[in-house]
Amino acid sequence: MHRTKVKVVEEALDANNTIAAANRADFDRAAVKVVNFMSAPGAGKTTLLERVVADLDGVRVGVLEGDVQGSMDADRLAGLHVPVIQLNTDPSFGGECHLDANMVRSAVPALPLEEIDLLIIENVGNLVCPAEFRVGEDARVMVCSITEGEDKPLKYPLMFRTCELVLVNKLDLLPHLDFDLDRLLYNIDQVHPDVERIVLSARTGKGVEAWRDWLVSIAAREEAVAAG
Amino acid sequence: MHRTKVKVVEEALDANNTIAAANRADFDRAAVKVVNFMSAPGAGKTTLLERVVADLDGVRVGVLEGDVQGSMDADRLAGLHVPVIQLNTDPSFGGECHLDANMVRSAVPALPLEEIDLLIIENVGNLVCPAEFRVGEDARVMVCSITEGEDKPLKYPLMFRTCELVLVNKLDLLPHLDFDLDRLLYNIDQVHPDVERIVLSARTGKGVEAWRDWLVSIAAREEAVAAG
Repeated sequence: MHRTKVKVVEEALDANNTIAAANRADFDRAAVKVVNFMSAPGAGKTTLLERVVADLDGVRVGVLEGDVQGSMDADRLAGLHVPVIQLNTDPSFGGECHLDANMVRSAVPALPLEEIDLLIIENVGNLVCPAEFRVGEDARVMVCSITEGEDKPLKYPLMFRTCELVLVNKLDLLPHLDFDLDRLLYNIDQVHPDVERIVLSARTGKGVEAWRDWLVSIAAREEAVAAG
Repeated sequence: MHRTKVKVVEEALDANNTIAAANRADFDRAAVKVVNFMSAPGAGKTTLLERVVADLDGVRVGVLEGDVQGSMDADRLAGLHVPVIQLNTDPSFGGECHLDANMVRSAVPALPLEEIDLLIIENVGNLVCPAEFRVGEDARVMVCSITEGEDKPLKYPLMFRTCELVLVNKLDLLPHLDFDLDRLLYNIDQVHPDVERIVLSARTGKGVEAWRDWLVSIAAREEAVAAG
């Protein structure tokens, strides 16, 4: 009994989770599934979206782009004729290094929820804080580029632990790096045993089909995962 | 007069700058120059230190390693027989994505300031928040790896603007990327015109001599730059 009580109090005090639940309710009402898409800067999130958003087996997709400033990624994706909303964390949010539930909440009125089945939220490039804030998503996906080294799961464990899919990107560069792919996969298992992973190359297209299929499967998922 | 007054009040309220000044005073007393070394995760900070710290023309160097958790980078550098102190932002600081002046302050008693001429503070891998916190440094250096794409200066302008040297790393991968080096250098100039830059490869050693010379020149710098 005591443990349960403490948990309730903690959740009541966590404004982010309260707002994430409100986002979740809005997404559920519109029957929209939501993916929180995260990585370090330059790991290839936008390119991996460019490869798939125009053809998702009939799934209607929209993208919410989170950046400190600018709309370069949104402009790239808008060229593919999918609805894209830009959310800047600077100056309105003081140059924040992540999206939180309240920032996403501020974008909800601008999202065409009735016209999409799947919303992909591209978070700010950062391996630390984005993992600490639920925004009302169904699933979390991260990209780990092999140019970042084998040690990243051990140095940023929360990010790897909190995602249900790890995209291991830039496979085309493997012959040109001092990099041990088995070591990276081993390190991923150290912090998140048996987490689903897809090794791919946004540049060559190798493995991209599996990424597309995964997104389609999320849109078809029956039950919503509770936020928080 | 009015403007001056407002400025004083702002600085008095900024605890981080107050503590950075205290760090600065300790560093000055010991005649130690300090470099705040920043980048995205996996850009090559530790490898670039491994390449130079063992031989800096007689400059005695120490390293303060900032990581969310673990001591992998510190262990790598300790093997080169330079004094290395590890500072973890988790759990003591709640998994912070950057170092601030107070975290560095907590490490000052552990630093062998009387035995070194140059302290390099390797910040947490992140292109946003580390740029927002002075820690009492003389100079700021960042690494931008060419695998991260040409757009990073435009997406993370504060980081590029706040550094006096940009190391453009992983040059050896240029033939294997769809990457326009001139475009990156142009974008750097857009946010920080004429900032000093060294294009190099930690892997092949090309350009590393210039990086070593730059660190030696910092240790020989006459006047301290005021913190804050």
